[in-house]
Amino acid sequence: MADKAPLSVKSLEWIEDHLRIIDQTYLPNRTVYSDLKDVGRVWEAIKKLRVRGAPAIGIAAAYGFYLGLRDQNEEHYKSFKIEAERIGDYLKSARPTAVNLSWAIDRLLQTITAYKDKPITEIKDRVLQVAKTIHEEDRNTCIKIGKAGIELVPKKANILTHCNTGGLATAEYGTALSVIYHAHQKDDGIHVWVDETRPLLQGARLTAYELHEAEIPHTLVTDSMAGHLMNQGKVDLVIVGTDRVAANGDVANKIGTYTLAVLADAHNIPFYVAAPLSSMDLSLESGGDIEIEERESDEVTHFNQQRTAPKKTEAYNPAFDITPKELVTAFVTEKGIIKPPYKKSLAKLFE
Amino acid sequence: MADKAPLSVKSLEWIEDHLRIIDQTYLPNRTVYSDLKDVGRVWEAIKKLRVRGAPAIGIAAAYGFYLGLRDQNEEHYKSFKIEAERIGDYLKSARPTAVNLSWAIDRLLQTITAYKDKPITEIKDRVLQVAKTIHEEDRNTCIKIGKAGIELVPKKANILTHCNTGGLATAEYGTALSVIYHAHQKDDGIHVWVDETRPLLQGARLTAYELHEAEIPHTLVTDSMAGHLMNQGKVDLVIVGTDRVAANGDVANKIGTYTLAVLADAHNIPFYVAAPLSSMDLSLESGGDIEIEERESDEVTHFNQQRTAPKKTEAYNPAFDITPKELVTAFVTEKGIIKPPYKKSLAKLFE
Repeated sequence: MADKAPLSVKSLEWIEDHLRIIDQTYLPNRTVYSDLKDVGRVWEAIKKLRVRGAPAIGIAAAYGFYLGLRDQNEEHYKSFKIEAERIGDYLKSARPTAVNLSWAIDRLLQTITAYKDKPITEIKDRVLQVAKTIHEEDRNTCIKIGKAGIELVPKKANILTHCNTGGLATAEYGTALSVIYHAHQKDDGIHVWVDETRPLLQGARLTAYELHEAEIPHTLVTDSMAGHLMNQGKVDLVIVGTDRVAANGDVANKIGTYTLAVLADAHNIPFYVAAPLSSMDLSLESGGDIEIEERESDEVTHFNQQRTAPKKTEAYNPAFDITPKELVTAFVTEKGIIKPPYKKSLAKLFE
Repeated sequence: MADKAPLSVKSLEWIEDHLRIIDQTYLPNRTVYSDLKDVGRVWEAIKKLRVRGAPAIGIAAAYGFYLGLRDQNEEHYKSFKIEAERIGDYLKSARPTAVNLSWAIDRLLQTITAYKDKPITEIKDRVLQVAKTIHEEDRNTCIKIGKAGIELVPKKANILTHCNTGGLATAEYGTALSVIYHAHQKDDGIHVWVDETRPLLQGARLTAYELHEAEIPHTLVTDSMAGHLMNQGKVDLVIVGTDRVAANGDVANKIGTYTLAVLADAHNIPFYVAAPLSSMDLSLESGGDIEIEERESDEVTHFNQQRTAPKKTEAYNPAFDITPKELVTAFVTEKGIIKPPYKKSLAKLFE
């Protein structure tokens, strides 16, 4: 099942000595690849959303971390480690909300510690190996999430999704979109409502692009249409991804997710969150502890470098919101479907 | 109070022998006036949203109806009346949801009937007079709505509004925005959250423009941020306009309104609808009887005339949605604040 990846382009690829990404800011109109050969370029690509989606950010950061280590000349472990931590902090600063970024960096810092008695060149090689492992693991995780989620999708379901959680946001397949890809293989009668996802239109630009490539029936809607669709009985379930899940089950995800969760609740529609374990941050008690990235006003007042609002208009632009655990019907993880009470069921995943 | 209109441009103006509108499709970047000298041009302007907002559509249609009558040469009342009905139907076909359009036409058809014994030229003059009366009445209605709504606005309130309901949408002042203008005169500590209102961005383009002109503090947000704002306690009330109110209190308004009403309900935030009596259609039992205009897919697949979604992407584009009466805290009308049960309280307005 799902042996052939639904997306013909690769979101990320390690090529000999550097990271190649598809620059997502040009999609769907142009397919532009970008070769990232140093850590500064990786930082910029994450910051500017050339590579985006929590799992893909984690993978890119892992390779970026290696590139940063490769290019520095410390010969002694102690100063090498200090330098590694500095590079790690630098990469983490690119985007604060997605935990996968710091999760990947912290894992590689542990690799360094584990090999502290080895020569610096060997430690660097090990870091690259683990970065490749993170990349490959994500691919497998996404397939497992997709297969686990099939049971949640009724026959001929109308599925509403937000932002982009597909192959472009991960190593391959995606998280919430992986569920849709796998459900479609079993039942080609499903249909997807694609939220355009303002301000950066990841739904219109990326999810519509992926579903078109995968030949899955879908219809684009503005974010404001979700309530109307639900009220007309046109939505059977909502499934989204996540950038960080707190220990109690509160979910940080793309701005607009909370609105969908409240609407789903009001219409008795199940609301699912597809979440690899790498998105879970059990060190945080609740969503209130999650830092919400605020992005520039220009993303709301402009489109494609063209101003739409009057010149002096200021906008508020939180990139994420928090959906409280009560509104999450279940999580779909690589270890199966996780149901409330989440404090207990999420902790159990890490036992 | 509010002697000086908050908006420096006039949405509509009758100049000697024709209608001049500000073409709202060019705002806020360019201020383009358009002189409409025949009924076909008025129909096109309504259809293409050059003139928009339920009350403004009613006024434009009234003048357009006169232009249509003026340009035809029937000399006998009977054929003149048939021709008038044809012109009326033609204008009504421009946009089906806003009742103000058919309300204005039907009123003018009654004028024709009332003067059926007079010469055709005199009937035509009477129609123009009544069109001017409709225009002037709307201005007064908007001021009354604004004054009536002041009591609903707490001190230093954060007010969320959707679409454009200001001077551009009416003869002057607006409906929901008139409440904001009048509340601001009493308390300059109020602040407005402006929903950008996809797909056509009437909030970003028009409401932000009007509030900037009126020097009322405001912040632009995407439609998807409303839930997040409410959850953070940043919204004290929601106020919107309407295109048609059914006898039971169900409200047709710009797509996204229903989503806001559900969110307001979930957060115990009052949800008000500013509605002149000309927006009420008591001939319809409930919102289910209101025809919802579906507009072209291109408005959603494009942003500011630029394609954002992949080439073959199809979109769903209902221009309006229905908010059920249960979610409406009160109506603000030119006859004061109207509370539930609406079937009774709305009917009483017309006694």
